[in-house]
Amino acid sequence: MKENRIYNFSAGPAMLPEEVLEQVAAEMLDKDGSGMSVMEMSHRSKFYQNIIDAAEADLRELIGIPENYKVIFLQGGATLGFGMIPMNFAFTGKVDIVNTGVWTKKVIKDTKLFAKVNVVADGEKDGFKKIPDLKNVKFDQDADYVYICDNNTIYGSKYNEYPDTGKIPLFVDMSSCFLSEPIDVKKFGLIYAGAQKNVGPAGVTIYIIRDDLLERLPKQPLPAYLDYRVHAASGSMYNTPPTFAIYVCGLVFKWLLKTGGLESRKLINEEKAKILYDYLDQSKLFKPYVDKEYRSLMNVTFRCPTDELDAEFLEGAKKYRFTNLKGHRSTGGLRASIYNAMPIEGVKALVKYMREFEEAHK
Amino acid sequence: MKENRIYNFSAGPAMLPEEVLEQVAAEMLDKDGSGMSVMEMSHRSKFYQNIIDAAEADLRELIGIPENYKVIFLQGGATLGFGMIPMNFAFTGKVDIVNTGVWTKKVIKDTKLFAKVNVVADGEKDGFKKIPDLKNVKFDQDADYVYICDNNTIYGSKYNEYPDTGKIPLFVDMSSCFLSEPIDVKKFGLIYAGAQKNVGPAGVTIYIIRDDLLERLPKQPLPAYLDYRVHAASGSMYNTPPTFAIYVCGLVFKWLLKTGGLESRKLINEEKAKILYDYLDQSKLFKPYVDKEYRSLMNVTFRCPTDELDAEFLEGAKKYRFTNLKGHRSTGGLRASIYNAMPIEGVKALVKYMREFEEAHK
Repeated sequence: MKENRIYNFSAGPAMLPEEVLEQVAAEMLDKDGSGMSVMEMSHRSKFYQNIIDAAEADLRELIGIPENYKVIFLQGGATLGFGMIPMNFAFTGKVDIVNTGVWTKKVIKDTKLFAKVNVVADGEKDGFKKIPDLKNVKFDQDADYVYICDNNTIYGSKYNEYPDTGKIPLFVDMSSCFLSEPIDVKKFGLIYAGAQKNVGPAGVTIYIIRDDLLERLPKQPLPAYLDYRVHAASGSMYNTPPTFAIYVCGLVFKWLLKTGGLESRKLINEEKAKILYDYLDQSKLFKPYVDKEYRSLMNVTFRCPTDELDAEFLEGAKKYRFTNLKGHRSTGGLRASIYNAMPIEGVKALVKYMREFEEAHK
Repeated sequence: MKENRIYNFSAGPAMLPEEVLEQVAAEMLDKDGSGMSVMEMSHRSKFYQNIIDAAEADLRELIGIPENYKVIFLQGGATLGFGMIPMNFAFTGKVDIVNTGVWTKKVIKDTKLFAKVNVVADGEKDGFKKIPDLKNVKFDQDADYVYICDNNTIYGSKYNEYPDTGKIPLFVDMSSCFLSEPIDVKKFGLIYAGAQKNVGPAGVTIYIIRDDLLERLPKQPLPAYLDYRVHAASGSMYNTPPTFAIYVCGLVFKWLLKTGGLESRKLINEEKAKILYDYLDQSKLFKPYVDKEYRSLMNVTFRCPTDELDAEFLEGAKKYRFTNLKGHRSTGGLRASIYNAMPIEGVKALVKYMREFEEAHK
């Protein structure tokens, strides 16, 4: 990492690979001899079509997306999806949702505007420290879909296995673990993820949707932008897409492919997370927040015995230029988000500081 | 302009000021000593809050936005607005719309999902070569709003005066003339504009909405992202905004302020457009498309006597590296979009080529 750069533990927007940023800077006034910035390119030009086509092709290769799934680059964040998904897909009017915290609560609220929501399991009583046990849950076989949030950024929890929903399609918000490890797309009806964690700048949301789910939709009268079929049919080009953000995502896809793909990325992410969790598990001062078997590799949450110590820890982090270690405003505590672009050296440096802090507060 | 850069006549995304792109490139790995790219900044950080606050303050100064108007930076393009505006504001169920082409037709279609639409005037019979005369139009004084599209990018037409809608708020899509000239915000209930013409990269849409119109809305059950009140109340920070795109817009606002503001910008834009229109008006080969009194300063549309000559003209433009001079696919012909960042030299160079082409085809 360049000397002036810092370790940024933000939950998102988050660090991006330095070589991607360097390429973006180098191409800012002239992308590949076009005489233009990517920001300036007509989205209807061959130049830009090549960029978005390459981004989609690289993403498909990276994940291994089957041909019967559409890829859509959309705007509005996952938050637009919270309402847009039921608006499109809850057409018979029943949806099963697993509540794992703030994000799924927002989904429940929006979904209720369009469907009867059945909260099939709820992590609230456990303070969202674990993913609720879904072994004995009977999913409604008449529901339009089952909805989960895979990685819960705020608490640092993650599914360690996906529920068996029978013939009912499983829809998943993967915002904060997307491209951090391999996924078996076939298990899902719909996957979506805001880019600003592992993928690129805020302002683009990636959807992977199984064809037949779009095809079976009745002719609902939806505004054009709010109809996934419109975007799927036009290759994300129904209206001007967030051209520059998609270009940056495309560079990140290339970086991931070049550095060994998602299998290799998972190993690196496991190694990074292990350094932090191993330290936390033996620490007398810091306590990890989430139950061991549901721990996220991306968002590591922990806390000191008191809020005052948390504050002191955050204050002390400044001298190392570690930033964004504060927990979410709804939970308090501390959180280190260590997405793909966080170097292992950053995690080691953080643990070194934690040891130092613990030593000083014995 | 730097030697490797080209004159890009795209209708959008379009040219950006070179000095803005240079600053963006220079700050790509480290914005103001933060050790981060703006892309990497948490939207909840003070660093980023300063950026979005400055962008809004500069925009307010630039236009002179009264205090009783909210500014919102949203995603989804104007196209999301086509449906979202009636979803929010057509609450009693009647909307008057002036049809000036492709964009208002899309608005009419989306609005009909939520309201009874009265197309109060229609430019279709004139091939959208003029803005329909609105002098004798009686706007429905029970309508929720009157909707117009100020500058019609595809045809190159623009309102030369705004209709008097009485007590009914006037809503306007200003996507392609926003910040190209001063506007009197008080005349409007709602102004919105996609950024990718005069303002910044695609992926952010700017709304200016009069307070009382938001306040008078009934408690409609809308998905959170689709409720303008949610965004207005949270300073565009309800969910992660398109942070980087807003930052670039902010730099463009500063460039506009530094170069004399919107009065001065209008004079420059008039001068640029005059060079093209003066040439067109005396040309024996090229014919301007739009009636003189409704000509856009931003999108200059014209055509040769035959499609073959248009094609030859486009082919010949390549040797000067002029790009995106082709008319919209729905109209054919030729179009030079000359937004704020197009230097006057670009317009002069284009006219020089047009003269040359005309001379060769006498």
